Amino acid sequence: MKQLIECVPNFSEGRDLSIIKQITDVIESVKGIRLINVDPGHATNRTVVTFVGEPEFVGEAAFRAIERASELIDMRYHKGEHPRFGATDVCPLVPVSDITMEETVEYARLLAKRVGNELNIPVYCYEYAAYEEKRRSLANCRSGEYEGLAEKMQTAEWMPDFGPTVFNARSGATAIGARNFLIAYNINLNTTSVRLANAIAFDVREAGRLQREGDPLTGKISTDENGEPVRIPGTLKKVRAIGWFIKEYGIAQISMNLTDITVTSVHEAFEEVCERARDRGIRVTGSELVGMIPLQAMLDAGKYFLRKQHRSVGIPDREIIKIAVKSLGLDELTPFDPENRIIECLLKNSGKQRCEKIQSIVRGKIG
Amino acid sequence: MKQLIECVPNFSEGRDLSIIKQITDVIESVKGIRLINVDPGHATNRTVVTFVGEPEFVGEAAFRAIERASELIDMRYHKGEHPRFGATDVCPLVPVSDITMEETVEYARLLAKRVGNELNIPVYCYEYAAYEEKRRSLANCRSGEYEGLAEKMQTAEWMPDFGPTVFNARSGATAIGARNFLIAYNINLNTTSVRLANAIAFDVREAGRLQREGDPLTGKISTDENGEPVRIPGTLKKVRAIGWFIKEYGIAQISMNLTDITVTSVHEAFEEVCERARDRGIRVTGSELVGMIPLQAMLDAGKYFLRKQHRSVGIPDREIIKIAVKSLGLDELTPFDPENRIIECLLKNSGKQRCEKIQSIVRGKIG
Repeated sequence: MKQLIECVPNFSEGRDLSIIKQITDVIESVKGIRLINVDPGHATNRTVVTFVGEPEFVGEAAFRAIERASELIDMRYHKGEHPRFGATDVCPLVPVSDITMEETVEYARLLAKRVGNELNIPVYCYEYAAYEEKRRSLANCRSGEYEGLAEKMQTAEWMPDFGPTVFNARSGATAIGARNFLIAYNINLNTTSVRLANAIAFDVREAGRLQREGDPLTGKISTDENGEPVRIPGTLKKVRAIGWFIKEYGIAQISMNLTDITVTSVHEAFEEVCERARDRGIRVTGSELVGMIPLQAMLDAGKYFLRKQHRSVGIPDREIIKIAVKSLGLDELTPFDPENRIIECLLKNSGKQRCEKIQSIVRGKIG
Repeated sequence: MKQLIECVPNFSEGRDLSIIKQITDVIESVKGIRLINVDPGHATNRTVVTFVGEPEFVGEAAFRAIERASELIDMRYHKGEHPRFGATDVCPLVPVSDITMEETVEYARLLAKRVGNELNIPVYCYEYAAYEEKRRSLANCRSGEYEGLAEKMQTAEWMPDFGPTVFNARSGATAIGARNFLIAYNINLNTTSVRLANAIAFDVREAGRLQREGDPLTGKISTDENGEPVRIPGTLKKVRAIGWFIKEYGIAQISMNLTDITVTSVHEAFEEVCERARDRGIRVTGSELVGMIPLQAMLDAGKYFLRKQHRSVGIPDREIIKIAVKSLGLDELTPFDPENRIIECLLKNSGKQRCEKIQSIVRGKIG
């Protein structure tokens, strides 16, 4: 199996699509890179680009994109609703296939060093690529945003990891990191009730729900000795979740981000939601993957359901994937085409097909 | 609400479609009758026709169809794999909407009398319309088939209820009856295993499974004092069920006939199968209605799921139906269009649309 990394740079331009096109063109100019998604936001004035490839080529494509963005985007004139501090605001690398997080961190740091040295842009390394604990958090690195950057960079605490120690007014700064693959995953319910969907979401998500005195919905929020609200954690680690109503389909969903599928996998999230929904008289009718999923996650899901049936897992991958799709009900709302949704399958086809804008990931984002 | 009866005559011709067309034409010539399905079988040389309408018109349409069949079909030349004893072999009336079984029986007997008197065809009244217990069973009425009819009619025991007491060689005899609405209903599983599907089917169907000594699959069949095999009944009354594999969808189903939804409703069958499937590590992923369903059955299902969620059932019918469709997963394999699948909705549209051959009911039949 080839080593694969996904790269999800966010550029501070979401309105002028000709600029975005010039950036994605340089990404696609690199050998073997597959552009998976381009998701511009008007209000945020920001575009999320997703591409995948072998590590060296991903590094090269990311470098060229950051370079092109520094030529085309001028942060002195940027306005938008999303926090940001640079033309290329963030650039996370994500291990997808046959590669460890440690190796991915090395590629992220190599990229960071090159961007700092060759493009004269201050770079902060974050999440798994961070050199110190407080820089793991992207929010910490970016606090104060572009407008506060010149001053922040002068403090010893926030000297960039790479690049100039003086403010680059045109490009701002870029956070480059390594993080786990994030799966945007929605579970469909046989109800229109957002209240019920939220109740189940709060049962399972790591952040749980606020503890209240008396009535669990309207009672006074409990606080600890420091006056901080007390939370009752949910059952699933590394899971963010809320309930919402999807007008298009006329049903409520639990919309989840699975931020580390080595801790909570897709099928574990599904099964737990089925159980908690059941407790509340609700039936899970299917589910929906927003964006891409690694092959291994699909195979793990299929094998889990086969084992539960005491059936052999020694069947072809495509049969295992089929069991996963049927068991999770991934085709309930829209057809699920493994060729276009499983990262490894998509890449196999990259010679044949040009990039299309796949389903927008906007709906999968949780604040 | 209008009174509605469904009529499901079976004609002893399944190969010459021009003959079938002439019969369905006279059915459709009657005011307000909606032809719902025409299902010819080559091997059986038999066609099952389904139509619906108000009681008097259904009686008239059935009479005209039996008359036309007696002109076009000559039983002396009929061969086919299905038991039969007449040109119009059976003609059951089924209460569908706002009508009791007692009233339906009256319409069936009126039809029987008219066919006997005006068409000179011997008629046996069966199921709810039977005048004596042993004639309730269609199999009893038809035993000996066409070939044995001349002799059988001479016995006092099997004198027809209506019509001539002498053999009509051309038309044979017709069984006219009243029975409950039968729903052909398939439940989809997340497995390819027919063995597992059958295990669940045997858990729930009224006929259950054969009791065996030792190994439940291969052990010697237990017998009672009369040497009859002993059966362990399943959990659902008035339900026939088997497991099968649907190549088209690549999954196993439990294929059911619900023969009295006042005893076991669609949603009760679904819920019980979900539970028994769960016991065996299987997930029910959705289900499939083959043919038509009465509105009330859909409303009952929707309300059942709403109540289970502690939600109000005081919402518009179309919303209740939507909850039923989503909860039962009726649209998992093919889109479920209430307008064309709920009998009352279909009839409302009958002015606009001509009859189409809706999904064949062949797959829904269980031997």
